Amino acid sequence: MLNYRPERLTPAQIEREREVAGGLAQSTRELVDAVIRSTVADEEMLAVQAEIEALTARLRASEIDGPYGVTINKAGEARNWGNSVVGVRNPIAPPVQIERIAQGKVRADFVLGAAYEGPPELVHGGVSALILDQMCGAAAAAAGTPGMTASLSMTYKRGTPLGALQAEAAVVRTEDHKTYVEAHIADTEGPTVLAEALFVLPRWARELLDKAPSPLSFE
Amino acid sequence: MLNYRPERLTPAQIEREREVAGGLAQSTRELVDAVIRSTVADEEMLAVQAEIEALTARLRASEIDGPYGVTINKAGEARNWGNSVVGVRNPIAPPVQIERIAQGKVRADFVLGAAYEGPPELVHGGVSALILDQMCGAAAAAAGTPGMTASLSMTYKRGTPLGALQAEAAVVRTEDHKTYVEAHIADTEGPTVLAEALFVLPRWARELLDKAPSPLSFE
Repeated sequence: MLNYRPERLTPAQIEREREVAGGLAQSTRELVDAVIRSTVADEEMLAVQAEIEALTARLRASEIDGPYGVTINKAGEARNWGNSVVGVRNPIAPPVQIERIAQGKVRADFVLGAAYEGPPELVHGGVSALILDQMCGAAAAAAGTPGMTASLSMTYKRGTPLGALQAEAAVVRTEDHKTYVEAHIADTEGPTVLAEALFVLPRWARELLDKAPSPLSFE
Repeated sequence: MLNYRPERLTPAQIEREREVAGGLAQSTRELVDAVIRSTVADEEMLAVQAEIEALTARLRASEIDGPYGVTINKAGEARNWGNSVVGVRNPIAPPVQIERIAQGKVRADFVLGAAYEGPPELVHGGVSALILDQMCGAAAAAAGTPGMTASLSMTYKRGTPLGALQAEAAVVRTEDHKTYVEAHIADTEGPTVLAEALFVLPRWARELLDKAPSPLSFE
């Protein structure tokens, strides 16, 4: 069912793409922020828009069909650079850099700006859910029991301010092919959003994993 | 607590900003997609990056402090153009255009491309949560009982393919200041993700609403 592609890049090529295309994505994140907040004159906005369209055409001179996808190398490591949360090449992704701190436990520090606003000056409640889903999946993978999200429940304790935040996720229990994860996002005052998630590894994925040389891991 | 700003633009100014800044955001959405998928040579990517940084500097020549925020006009209508899901000026937002189809019931048709990928060729489970949170909030507002998300639970029935999708949300029950909403995202084969949400209107917000001439509505 899931169309993972074999990794065809060498480590050096991967590092070069991270640097060049990742740099392009980072500059585009800044542009996204400026587009939301700019108050320059209409004529200037129209002129900038025309230039953006010309740059898009230059980038589209050669491009892959469809989305970036996820590649897997011979060690079973996945590279998901189009991902909406952690994707190095995706300007929508903050990107959140998730760090494995123990078996089945991950954390991340990140900064959310104007693009992630819901209520005035607060993080969109759905953006918190987006990040927590990724964190929970990373914790499941860090436990050696990766899976697809089967359910995800958020409890909002209070508004999450835009700015510097941190998140943690930890596997609390596994049963057969089910992995239960708890997570939260916190500001300097403590947790603002709590999450509980259930990940399930479907049969087709278990068969895929049996063929891979090591458990799937997602950076 | 929430810093809603009074609307200072005239209807004509609002329409002009929707056209000009909204057009700029739409072109930036195309750029975001091209950044993810481009395979042009490194030199060309670096050249495009330099031009993007110059355009960002032009837009930043004049900009608001902080995020876009949410304005409210004298009729109590909110304008949230920085919003991560529906924001006309936010290149991260698809944007989803939510249509009120009945008292407490809303729907939307939208297309999700490469920027919204999680598993290969599928919508990120957290992106589904992001959109469903916004849909549920819009349904609560469309019932005349707006609120802040208190809890949000998703059940994933199967993977959601990238491409054309639709979503619906409906209020199923209200109790005092609590509004219960159910929602789903569907492809042509039927629902892929179900959501249940609880919205609560805190005391400070009820006091704010009492001062407004009509219920808060979010476009």
